[in-house]
Amino acid sequence: MKEAKKKLEQLGEKTLNEINRNENPNIEIPIRSLSNVTYDAKTKMLTIGDKTAKRYFFNVAHAKKFMQTLMVAAFCKELQDQNLHTSLRDLFYVLKRTFPNSQENTFDEQSESDPMVVDLEVTLDILREQLHLNADIRGRVVGNVIIEDRGDVIDWGKLGSGGWAIPSNVEEIIFKKVKADYILVIEKNASFERLHEDKFWQKQKAILVTTQGQSARGTRRLIQRLATEFNLPVYVFTDADSYGWYIYSVIKYGSISLAHVSDRLGTPNAKFLGLTISDIDEFGLKNFTIKAEEVDIKRAQEMLKYEWFQAPEWQKELKLMIQRKIKAELEALSGKGLKFITETYLPKKIKNKEFLP
Amino acid sequence: MKEAKKKLEQLGEKTLNEINRNENPNIEIPIRSLSNVTYDAKTKMLTIGDKTAKRYFFNVAHAKKFMQTLMVAAFCKELQDQNLHTSLRDLFYVLKRTFPNSQENTFDEQSESDPMVVDLEVTLDILREQLHLNADIRGRVVGNVIIEDRGDVIDWGKLGSGGWAIPSNVEEIIFKKVKADYILVIEKNASFERLHEDKFWQKQKAILVTTQGQSARGTRRLIQRLATEFNLPVYVFTDADSYGWYIYSVIKYGSISLAHVSDRLGTPNAKFLGLTISDIDEFGLKNFTIKAEEVDIKRAQEMLKYEWFQAPEWQKELKLMIQRKIKAELEALSGKGLKFITETYLPKKIKNKEFLP
Repeated sequence: MKEAKKKLEQLGEKTLNEINRNENPNIEIPIRSLSNVTYDAKTKMLTIGDKTAKRYFFNVAHAKKFMQTLMVAAFCKELQDQNLHTSLRDLFYVLKRTFPNSQENTFDEQSESDPMVVDLEVTLDILREQLHLNADIRGRVVGNVIIEDRGDVIDWGKLGSGGWAIPSNVEEIIFKKVKADYILVIEKNASFERLHEDKFWQKQKAILVTTQGQSARGTRRLIQRLATEFNLPVYVFTDADSYGWYIYSVIKYGSISLAHVSDRLGTPNAKFLGLTISDIDEFGLKNFTIKAEEVDIKRAQEMLKYEWFQAPEWQKELKLMIQRKIKAELEALSGKGLKFITETYLPKKIKNKEFLP
Repeated sequence: MKEAKKKLEQLGEKTLNEINRNENPNIEIPIRSLSNVTYDAKTKMLTIGDKTAKRYFFNVAHAKKFMQTLMVAAFCKELQDQNLHTSLRDLFYVLKRTFPNSQENTFDEQSESDPMVVDLEVTLDILREQLHLNADIRGRVVGNVIIEDRGDVIDWGKLGSGGWAIPSNVEEIIFKKVKADYILVIEKNASFERLHEDKFWQKQKAILVTTQGQSARGTRRLIQRLATEFNLPVYVFTDADSYGWYIYSVIKYGSISLAHVSDRLGTPNAKFLGLTISDIDEFGLKNFTIKAEEVDIKRAQEMLKYEWFQAPEWQKELKLMIQRKIKAELEALSGKGLKFITETYLPKKIKNKEFLP
């Protein structure tokens, strides 16, 4: 039996037993607030601590949330039984109803049902995707890789200019052939398209992934699976600004709000390839920088304090950004010619292993 | 020679001749403001009128823009010669420079170079994609279709759960096999995933496209090519609100800001399948509606006046939305069960041809 189904059934049985024993049914849920999230320097991951809270049925303050948690769990069990996948929005609509002879709804807003999903994810120590709840999709991939997904055999190297659209759920993908020396993760789609058109992935034996901004869960999980199952280095390539660098850190260490799944969504061996503020001098990009806004500077100042940004290289780049009040986009490299990124910047960085930790 | 290259060369030759004849070099550009955009009831398209403006080199008010237009044209010619494609952001960086011994830049912001691209598009009567300038990407497709793109043969029916990621430029795609009775265009990815998982496109012989919100140019062009080249009906499926209905109208008639390319991006034979406000009664969705915001109502009031929303069916739906102050999302159908959309709503609507014009 699948892990998710088993754990959901165990939750149901536990509750049933408590009822039969005339106990107060309850669920013990690890606390997800910042106070219970720590950076583990050994595993290089943001992880959730041991603090938990119990949610009781016979407690006026808990009763509605307890009911909502069980409704979501029961619906997820249904999804398992019928082998269906759906979205958080759909879950909300399916479970939204009014109690007979009352004005009281099971859920009034999706903002009530979403946290129940994360509660289940952290309580059962399982991925939301394993519960068959799809997340937003974003991200594309190309490379010398053949996979099997839903019975289809798909060659990521033969999908024309579009590449393969990464689905929200990559749990059941089977990798049939993976021929690559490394994975290059690119924040911007425009740079991905440039590299794809220049056949960079063929020449460099790379798998190219674009996150199209902050990486979606499916994309992070795919990077993690490829990196760990095939022992591939991961190089992340973002804009030179606090936002881009944070995208990198989420791919590598996980995020604060999803610290409980860092072990499945994070890729601790990922390295940062660029852009850095230092690159601006090294590659003569000064004319192509942008003024950093207040919000960029503030973010950089926060990141200076994060335990996982304490490496001297990162402290240097963050401080440079704050001092000079500048940032640079991946497209800035086009200022040196469209093929500069493919023929000069990336080969030099990768050959000389000029990475940040 | 390709059309784009030919037209760019003609523009260059015309300018050169004017210089050689000691004339004032100029470019005649159709005006793109609302005053020059009309709805053509016969072709069912938003079209641009005959008004033009001339941009002169020897005119203090025009000189910089004239130079910028020619710089963008020259860069596009380079793209043609080298057979490269790039983004508007990259174009900006490539062309941004400071004139020697001055503080004057060719372009200070991308907001200066973007309109030059549209000027060229409308002047040369050519698509931006033909100029090799990629637009944003968004949108996925599945179906019983085989295409050739950049030498790769791609079967849209064998791409697993992800589907084919529609690229920004679909001009050079070759359709090798198209087996479908119609094209179903879906606003929301979640509904697309539901239908894909339920094998709707196989059972119904449909091509499924999700626009993921407002449709990107590549997605609109792909729909238009499929519809016209294979004489396929197009049914559009959006949320029941003014925003969703506008997405439909842009697919069908084109948009005000891009009226000059409606003939290549619009699909006049498209029909609206749902959701309508009337559907809420017909399918018992009342519990799953949302309160329409001020901005939704205001948009609906504007749309009431648009010539292309004058059909009685549309007037009725817009007025219903305004009166009842409600809207409904595609996901509302899940309130009736996850498979309601696949097994009841869509088959009924399509079988009975319950479309809005």
